[in-house]
Amino acid sequence: MTIVITAFERSPDGGKGLARDTRVRWALEEAGQPYEVRLVSFAAMKEPAHLRLHPFGQIPTYEEGDLALFETGSIVFHIAEQHPGLFPADADARARAITWMFAALNTVEPPILELAIAKFGEGDKPWTQERMPLVVERIRNRLKQLSARLGDAGWLDGEFSAGDLMMVSVLLRVKPSGILAEFPSLAAYVARGEARPAYQRAFAAQLAINAGEPK
Amino acid sequence: MTIVITAFERSPDGGKGLARDTRVRWALEEAGQPYEVRLVSFAAMKEPAHLRLHPFGQIPTYEEGDLALFETGSIVFHIAEQHPGLFPADADARARAITWMFAALNTVEPPILELAIAKFGEGDKPWTQERMPLVVERIRNRLKQLSARLGDAGWLDGEFSAGDLMMVSVLLRVKPSGILAEFPSLAAYVARGEARPAYQRAFAAQLAINAGEPK
Repeated sequence: MTIVITAFERSPDGGKGLARDTRVRWALEEAGQPYEVRLVSFAAMKEPAHLRLHPFGQIPTYEEGDLALFETGSIVFHIAEQHPGLFPADADARARAITWMFAALNTVEPPILELAIAKFGEGDKPWTQERMPLVVERIRNRLKQLSARLGDAGWLDGEFSAGDLMMVSVLLRVKPSGILAEFPSLAAYVARGEARPAYQRAFAAQLAINAGEPK
Repeated sequence: MTIVITAFERSPDGGKGLARDTRVRWALEEAGQPYEVRLVSFAAMKEPAHLRLHPFGQIPTYEEGDLALFETGSIVFHIAEQHPGLFPADADARARAITWMFAALNTVEPPILELAIAKFGEGDKPWTQERMPLVVERIRNRLKQLSARLGDAGWLDGEFSAGDLMMVSVLLRVKPSGILAEFPSLAAYVARGEARPAYQRAFAAQLAINAGEPK
């Protein structure tokens, strides 16, 4: 059955790979699964046809025959469960990989989202400059803990897994701020993720859509 | 094998059931699994012994023989996968239940966390009063979308699932603010969750620890 995902017709990041379809593309590339992409405009994302697929009016979505999913975490989980390459075979190791997926999305990403909101949603507010150090400090606290756990290991728990895919994807969002570079072992961890051929293919595929002039 | 979870020695909410061990207790009660609780002080949560279990120094954790997990989402997922009662048998319906778990934790909870941070982490800051309506509006936007999807259904996708357990748990955090009550169908959805005998047992168990005078 053909896998169809949705992506921004034009990503707000101009092709830096930070839109969430890149996470799904990366997982599909790791799993060696071909896929098609349907591009969606910002206006179409709020229309009933898209809201039936994604109740929060976002991208990406995932369709495969009768199955329709939203939420990057859930889509990457589904891909990892259906195909080898993203979950370890051992049951306990698999449970720990899933733990890291949730840790990336529910513990590490929220303070990073907060920074994006402070910059792009409240950038013009009178309090933003004074408030920013607090927001940055909350990210630093998380990265300090993550860095302590990673130590000098290559990946978070043994071999590369969907947990690393999600954590690297979340950390990539904080790279442009310069905060990631304060934690050299995490920066190297992210660079290892970016160097994977599957990531490279996913990145190139989204760049091909987003680079150049807006349509 | 005995299941052991950790919880606050003394929850900051004084027993309102908003600490995250309640989510895990609820899942264990739905699955009919007995469990033991090890209480952890705020000081002990930052000690190496606890950080080995939970790299971000939080509760709950989950131990079962050699397996040690953290992150509520991952623990509830593990319980739902091991025991009947929290995931539908049909594969597509199960994938959708997992989607709602991730939606609760990565789409609905982040703006709710932001409100908690604005109140308890930045409550004394000069900008907080002026900024608060923005924070509240971001929650309202999400609840509007969630309410539209739920419609007049009892649960998010067919029978009660781990997706509902997580969504109800996340929405409970916004109930004290009064925002939930603006969405009567969501308030009724949360009340249906709270009325489940398994939730009642979980709530009572955490209350027994947190009620009364601090130790």
